[in-house]
Amino acid sequence: MTPRANTSKLRITLNTTRDREFLDSWAELEVIGATPAGGVERQAATAEDGQMREWFSQWLRDRGFTVEVDRVGNLFGLLEFHDGAPYVLVGSHLDSQPRGGRFDGAYGVLAGAVAADRVRRHAAESGVTPRYNIAVVDWFNEEGSRFKPSLMGSAVFTGAADLEDTLNIADHDGVTVREALTAIGSIGDRDVFGAGEGSRRLAAYAEIHIEQGRELEKDNVSIGLVDRTWAANKYELNVIGAQGHTGATAIDDRQDALLGASLIVVALRDIADEFGDELHTSCGQMTVLPNSPVVVPREVHMHLDLRSDNDELLAAADAALRKRIAEAEIRAKVKVEHRKAHVWPGHHYQPQGVELARTVADDLGVSSMLVQTRAGHDSTNMKEIVPSVMLFVPSVDGISHAEAEYTADEDLCTGVDLLTETLARMLDGALDSAAAERA
Amino acid sequence: MTPRANTSKLRITLNTTRDREFLDSWAELEVIGATPAGGVERQAATAEDGQMREWFSQWLRDRGFTVEVDRVGNLFGLLEFHDGAPYVLVGSHLDSQPRGGRFDGAYGVLAGAVAADRVRRHAAESGVTPRYNIAVVDWFNEEGSRFKPSLMGSAVFTGAADLEDTLNIADHDGVTVREALTAIGSIGDRDVFGAGEGSRRLAAYAEIHIEQGRELEKDNVSIGLVDRTWAANKYELNVIGAQGHTGATAIDDRQDALLGASLIVVALRDIADEFGDELHTSCGQMTVLPNSPVVVPREVHMHLDLRSDNDELLAAADAALRKRIAEAEIRAKVKVEHRKAHVWPGHHYQPQGVELARTVADDLGVSSMLVQTRAGHDSTNMKEIVPSVMLFVPSVDGISHAEAEYTADEDLCTGVDLLTETLARMLDGALDSAAAERA
Repeated sequence: MTPRANTSKLRITLNTTRDREFLDSWAELEVIGATPAGGVERQAATAEDGQMREWFSQWLRDRGFTVEVDRVGNLFGLLEFHDGAPYVLVGSHLDSQPRGGRFDGAYGVLAGAVAADRVRRHAAESGVTPRYNIAVVDWFNEEGSRFKPSLMGSAVFTGAADLEDTLNIADHDGVTVREALTAIGSIGDRDVFGAGEGSRRLAAYAEIHIEQGRELEKDNVSIGLVDRTWAANKYELNVIGAQGHTGATAIDDRQDALLGASLIVVALRDIADEFGDELHTSCGQMTVLPNSPVVVPREVHMHLDLRSDNDELLAAADAALRKRIAEAEIRAKVKVEHRKAHVWPGHHYQPQGVELARTVADDLGVSSMLVQTRAGHDSTNMKEIVPSVMLFVPSVDGISHAEAEYTADEDLCTGVDLLTETLARMLDGALDSAAAERA
Repeated sequence: MTPRANTSKLRITLNTTRDREFLDSWAELEVIGATPAGGVERQAATAEDGQMREWFSQWLRDRGFTVEVDRVGNLFGLLEFHDGAPYVLVGSHLDSQPRGGRFDGAYGVLAGAVAADRVRRHAAESGVTPRYNIAVVDWFNEEGSRFKPSLMGSAVFTGAADLEDTLNIADHDGVTVREALTAIGSIGDRDVFGAGEGSRRLAAYAEIHIEQGRELEKDNVSIGLVDRTWAANKYELNVIGAQGHTGATAIDDRQDALLGASLIVVALRDIADEFGDELHTSCGQMTVLPNSPVVVPREVHMHLDLRSDNDELLAAADAALRKRIAEAEIRAKVKVEHRKAHVWPGHHYQPQGVELARTVADDLGVSSMLVQTRAGHDSTNMKEIVPSVMLFVPSVDGISHAEAEYTADEDLCTGVDLLTETLARMLDGALDSAAAERA
């Protein structure tokens, strides 16, 4: 991408003061739930997540936003310019993986909030208000580590998941979403947006995130314009064997649930090797029962995922996996139960959103390129109901879901600038044509 | 084995009253820590283990035994016929695996106690006291599920393990052996037996246990005479990878600790298949970090064991495993740390003990055969310091370390009878020649 001259109407020349505002807030935010090794641990609706939500709510109120929380714990900061006008929503998630990185999610929420605040100040100073109202969001439980599945808050928001079912999902200790949100005082009794008469309505959505990959870094590009998501098949399996003594039980008599599970983990990698770069396969979670050194395991719970940008290839990989699971059942003398499956098809983001962000990048003289996302994001859900823009900033070595995750200050600040200008243009109706296509 | 006429001097004809005494006590014992599915859960130094120890201490006191607990929680019931005379010790362990069987360990303790009590009553009624004193024992933490390694109490007793090191071993929640034993009030401040002047001394040891195998059942034999233990190599490994996003991290960039661990589990089975019936290999415990569905695991802790009755074959299997671990390191891009290793060589029980038990079985008209033990037992430790007799009773389908473990009342009662007569002969010096060989 060739840098171009700045033709933005809102563009305020990059300066230290403006970057400093973002970085100072970032410095306050990133210590909440910080771990000794430089990461964070703020799993959904834990005390640390609650502490973060209080800090963020205060940040919003200090700048004139109204704070509301919906029935599944999505936290909104609202700024109304025109009574009854639709809102452009911007945000991401403040929860993290266990021993996760500082940037995943939290960067997008603060970047969105700072972008919204810049628009607010520009409107106050210029006397020219945007056509749409602004809302900032912290989606509940994007990560899905404590409560499964991931993308929980945005899924309920868009109607992809049921509210009551979701509130009754329990964590490993039997605590439900409802109980955990109540414990941190972060659950509302009504929707913040809706379809009914007099409800707040949405016009569009924007989100910025670290890349969680190496494409931008490799090509030395500042902004990724996400045009596609990878499809993801996620499975929860129970491998059922029979408990026995590791010393006394003859090998032929064993029904070894851990052997069955291990054969499946190895099969996942074999299939990835066979299908090539277009396929990612993983098993991230495995729980062994009874998990005693001298007991042949009776049961293993495991979570698998298969992801690809190619739906046909994903279907072929899925079939290959099922064949290998059947073979594992025979060799380990176990039964594999398919407990749950979440299937996210691959999807395109609205091309008008991609084009808008590309134009903004060109106007700001910022390099950009098309990228795909292999990870799921809340925008994956949101693009199904409103035109949505998804932006990436570079992440060093592509490290993610790990404490070593890192993005340079300069890249963070460039992302905030780009998001600000994109948001400003969305607030003036830049994606109305995409919305009209949907209607 | 051909049943023979009963020539025992102590032999009291089998009768309902006598069997009933054992079975009534057994009915009281087996409900402590009972699980809904018919098993028990009394892991070492838990509340259930404490409750069992109280019940058993009362049982012993009611029958005139003195109860003492040593510094690592081994619980002894002592019956002194002659001041200063050595003791014959009989017992097993009352702790269980998580969701373990009712018979493993507990049967041997109650059988030993009932046998000792029968000898006591016979002495009181006949006026003829044995040459040696009697002690009954509940060894602390034979199972090794909560605190590792297994055979803990008997290992400290025989000097195979260090007392202080053992007391400082912590469970998964960081609770030490010392703290857990103190919490259930089952830790003493001195040795119960010892080598010093005026200390109580041991002459011999006897233990009875369910077979945890199918040899007796298959051959329809009532008593197994254990003449050999299988050797066991037990390893604790840490597989070290790097945490990453399951969606975003390219397959080639992954350092997947769970893939590494799974390759090792599969290798264990491959090696068992290759080496045949003389080798058992297992992985019973695996803990995955951080264990989140969308995170490539950074670390896996695993416990392996390899067992064989053939030392050379075990060494060859061990070498094969190390080769496969090195291959797993390369494929999964992980580092495997060998954290701990416990090696129990295969050993013979004293042939005089085997011969004594065989004679008793013949005299009682009970069928018997030589068997090996693949599982470790406290007698595995004890036979290293005194002549020891190890007896098995049949276990239906060889099920063990599982709730479905089952031995018929008739087999339990036959075992108690055989143990009683064997103990009586040991108390009169039947294994003195074996002791003299050791000295």
